[in-house]
Amino acid sequence: MIVLRLALAQVNYTVGDLPGNADIVVARTAEAAAAGAQLVMFPEMMLTGYPVEDLVLRPGFRDASRAALDALAGALADAGLGDTAVVVGYVDDDGVPRNASAFLLGGQVKARYFKHHLPNYGVFDERRYFVPGRSLTVVRHLGVDIALTVCEDLWQDGGPFTVAGAAGVGLVLNINSSPYERNKDDIRLPLLVRRAAEAGAPIAYVNSVAGQDELVFDGDSMVVAADGTLLTRVQQFVEGVFVVDVPVVEATDPAPEVVDEVMTVTRVATSVPEPPPADPQPAPVAPRLPDEAEVWNALVVGLRDYVGKNGFRSVVLGVSGGIDSAVVAAVAADALGGENVYGVSMPSAYSTEHSRSDAEDLVRRIEAHYRSIPMKSVIDEFVGMLSLTGVAEENVQARVRGTTLMALSNTEGHLVLATGNKSELAVGYATIYDAGSIGGFSPLKDVPKTLVWALARWRNAQAEADGETPPIPPNSITKPPSAELRPDQLDSDSLPDYEVLDAILARYVDGDRGVAQIIAEGFDAELVRKVARMVDTAEWKRRQYPPGTKISYKAFGRDRRLPITNRWRENG
Amino acid sequence: MIVLRLALAQVNYTVGDLPGNADIVVARTAEAAAAGAQLVMFPEMMLTGYPVEDLVLRPGFRDASRAALDALAGALADAGLGDTAVVVGYVDDDGVPRNASAFLLGGQVKARYFKHHLPNYGVFDERRYFVPGRSLTVVRHLGVDIALTVCEDLWQDGGPFTVAGAAGVGLVLNINSSPYERNKDDIRLPLLVRRAAEAGAPIAYVNSVAGQDELVFDGDSMVVAADGTLLTRVQQFVEGVFVVDVPVVEATDPAPEVVDEVMTVTRVATSVPEPPPADPQPAPVAPRLPDEAEVWNALVVGLRDYVGKNGFRSVVLGVSGGIDSAVVAAVAADALGGENVYGVSMPSAYSTEHSRSDAEDLVRRIEAHYRSIPMKSVIDEFVGMLSLTGVAEENVQARVRGTTLMALSNTEGHLVLATGNKSELAVGYATIYDAGSIGGFSPLKDVPKTLVWALARWRNAQAEADGETPPIPPNSITKPPSAELRPDQLDSDSLPDYEVLDAILARYVDGDRGVAQIIAEGFDAELVRKVARMVDTAEWKRRQYPPGTKISYKAFGRDRRLPITNRWRENG
Repeated sequence: MIVLRLALAQVNYTVGDLPGNADIVVARTAEAAAAGAQLVMFPEMMLTGYPVEDLVLRPGFRDASRAALDALAGALADAGLGDTAVVVGYVDDDGVPRNASAFLLGGQVKARYFKHHLPNYGVFDERRYFVPGRSLTVVRHLGVDIALTVCEDLWQDGGPFTVAGAAGVGLVLNINSSPYERNKDDIRLPLLVRRAAEAGAPIAYVNSVAGQDELVFDGDSMVVAADGTLLTRVQQFVEGVFVVDVPVVEATDPAPEVVDEVMTVTRVATSVPEPPPADPQPAPVAPRLPDEAEVWNALVVGLRDYVGKNGFRSVVLGVSGGIDSAVVAAVAADALGGENVYGVSMPSAYSTEHSRSDAEDLVRRIEAHYRSIPMKSVIDEFVGMLSLTGVAEENVQARVRGTTLMALSNTEGHLVLATGNKSELAVGYATIYDAGSIGGFSPLKDVPKTLVWALARWRNAQAEADGETPPIPPNSITKPPSAELRPDQLDSDSLPDYEVLDAILARYVDGDRGVAQIIAEGFDAELVRKVARMVDTAEWKRRQYPPGTKISYKAFGRDRRLPITNRWRENG
Repeated sequence: MIVLRLALAQVNYTVGDLPGNADIVVARTAEAAAAGAQLVMFPEMMLTGYPVEDLVLRPGFRDASRAALDALAGALADAGLGDTAVVVGYVDDDGVPRNASAFLLGGQVKARYFKHHLPNYGVFDERRYFVPGRSLTVVRHLGVDIALTVCEDLWQDGGPFTVAGAAGVGLVLNINSSPYERNKDDIRLPLLVRRAAEAGAPIAYVNSVAGQDELVFDGDSMVVAADGTLLTRVQQFVEGVFVVDVPVVEATDPAPEVVDEVMTVTRVATSVPEPPPADPQPAPVAPRLPDEAEVWNALVVGLRDYVGKNGFRSVVLGVSGGIDSAVVAAVAADALGGENVYGVSMPSAYSTEHSRSDAEDLVRRIEAHYRSIPMKSVIDEFVGMLSLTGVAEENVQARVRGTTLMALSNTEGHLVLATGNKSELAVGYATIYDAGSIGGFSPLKDVPKTLVWALARWRNAQAEADGETPPIPPNSITKPPSAELRPDQLDSDSLPDYEVLDAILARYVDGDRGVAQIIAEGFDAELVRKVARMVDTAEWKRRQYPPGTKISYKAFGRDRRLPITNRWRENG
């Protein structure tokens, strides 16, 4: 047995910022080397960020990624880090585009590996961009045969892990940019255990912590031994370099010959010999986060990175006194600090007194900026100009608020946050171009209404436990939801109870279940048909929403891609 | 030689309308049978429409498609059309989802073929949905061995056409839903000639005429003989059933054994014997359309189907007197009739007199509805309420117009058309949520400004040649473009000449060329860098636009998928 000290660099990156991302690699490698690590692993596509989408199709981008890798190898050596092995993801091009991992040492690119299994489902389109690699790269370093793999290689049967087993490797490194999704962390560990058994070796898994448009990456990096023992697990959503000592079997000569129908093996040796024997130090295993904590962190990281990486420092949003805008504001305050959050109350003739006081209470609790701008004069002018009544009058009230927020963004430079939630977006219960749907980012786009309430309760309870002011006004949690666009309007006039609605949506949207199936589960038949029809006809509205952080299996947007023009109706 | 009378059904479909699409197949088969056709070919995914996107992932949808196919076979027989062979596209599921073609005869599904080459580039995501077929289906019918293929099978080397050649078939049927793109029709014929040589047999190619969200299908159906002779070509964008007599080589016994690494051959026989000898009648070869005519037709079909298939009858748009809104209105009048087009002039304090008179002139020429609603009072109220100046004041003017159009849509039930063009969208020279970017559909989203002018000139010239009133006011074509959001504002204050801008955009956007490459072609270096930076930072704006008809190689939307959060900047 040899004990290798690995460092898992669970870090952030910015799509397209190749020099900035390379700087992070150098700084984090220095940190790892200072902690005695012999090898540092960075996430999939660390150098380019992930996903870069159609940037891969630009030859200039692929060239820049390759050049940045060479420069990084040099920069590491120049910083005196040439003896620390660095494994890092980037985009390569050997005649065709590749999702690649490189092994850097002594100022050089010692080995490259091209991802074999390319995901092309859910949020992934990697068959659009990359050609699969057909050879497993095994690097002999410090007396250990180390196999390089990338993300999806872990999730599909056959290929790299099977071949690693046949090749008799001592360790498999798996670098990831694996997007967060509720309960996904429950799947990763059993999968690693299974693949470690197939490979007959420990697996070190590293994932980024980053927000990128709709995606957020939650880290959850870990190492499992060949027998499935969890050697370390890093807390989700925490950035840093985490060191772990991994006992591994030394390489033998001659290495086993591998005959496989799908992949060959490419062996590379660094000529750095076995290290002296050492006793492995135990590394921490982070406790699992509760579901609400996970989602809250995902929303905070998603919002923080979307705002910051797009060059904004502050956000503006409409605060109505309702639960949605309260939760968006509280997430924004956690992400950016209350001093960078600008809440605007925009009362109309139908706004209740409590909507104003609850909004003001919210903003006070999170120490954000508050102003109130009565909309009545502009709305009256609009309604009079066009002689509006009914839904048209309701919608103009809502859109005047959207236009007001965009004007404040123009004047003061804040990014506008939309406050709409997934339930209303699913059924099209939304005025497009209002304060719920306008702007740069919609944090609750993938959060069903019942979860919005649960998050509010969880965040308040957490604050109380920490002796801090709960950010959400209790009244915003308990009062019945209303758009306040006509007298005494309530959501329940148009929609079923959110408990029931969300249960149907989870089945119809996330589960792709049919109307008949859902009715057979005991839901009211007429209601299921009505909800399905609302979902089926709201695609245009969903397309008009700004991006928002994906937290579910089927987020609207990258995950669930449906035609707008669509006459398909399931009859139950 | 046997002479087969084929019918090419170059027809429309509606995504998700399985019964409606089946009705079209029955009606068009009756028409073909009356013209003496022995076999009728319908487009790829005729029964479901194309593309159905994530509907394929719903098991209920796949079941419905299979059931609709069985019902269609029965309905054809019930209509007395059981003796006419029908080849039709649909979605199948034999454990995995398939893009399939069926051969119907005598009330039964006699044979099925599963598409082998699945496109996963440009607008296509078929690897997301389907599993490739591994067997070429050859149907012996009327004494001829007929191979079934689908769309992309034609565009990639190897596979079905090679195997068809080895199998000694007499005829290859290729059913398509092949989206329009400028100059694509120049590629299709040489490709068919090449594949006919590989197969050693004539190829019959049928394509739909339909608009579906961003895509429009242009028909261009044709038949080439084994030696490459073009036997017939149907005019683009014209719906109908087109009959052609095709001389084919009769089948031999035993049929050749095929040994191929990729595909097997599945042979099916209908037991319908060879027909009596007949002399082939020549079929027409449609002349090619000029580029502007092609694009105009694409825009008309795209708009007509988006409006109609989404259940609207009429459209409303802002008419500013400028060229963009004039062309959108003229396209809408050609698509829906002037009586279904509602033009709204919305003058502000900075609107010129000619903007009003040109707008009125336009609406009169196309016999549409006109009204003028001065925006001054609402704008003044808004500007006063928020103390706006500068860009914020300009944008509020523009957004008040957007809100006005949405209110008219709410009140009167028209679909709102956005009037923005591809050039301004590319560089982000647009106020989001204004009359240029708001609403259900943006017809010029993929039309560069210089092409907008060319289309206007072409359409006016065509009208003059036909002795009709040219729809576009000449003044709208010749005056310098302006947003009229401040005194004496011109586009040229902010942008280079559109001739130069469009030339740079064609290279940077459509061509994925690098900044250095474009500068090396002789463009001004500073200007190229400025334009590239504007394009790189405008992705959020592009995402907020409603869909529009794709006419170019790289339309924004389905074709060119870039991150919003993106620090990549090419230095030249």
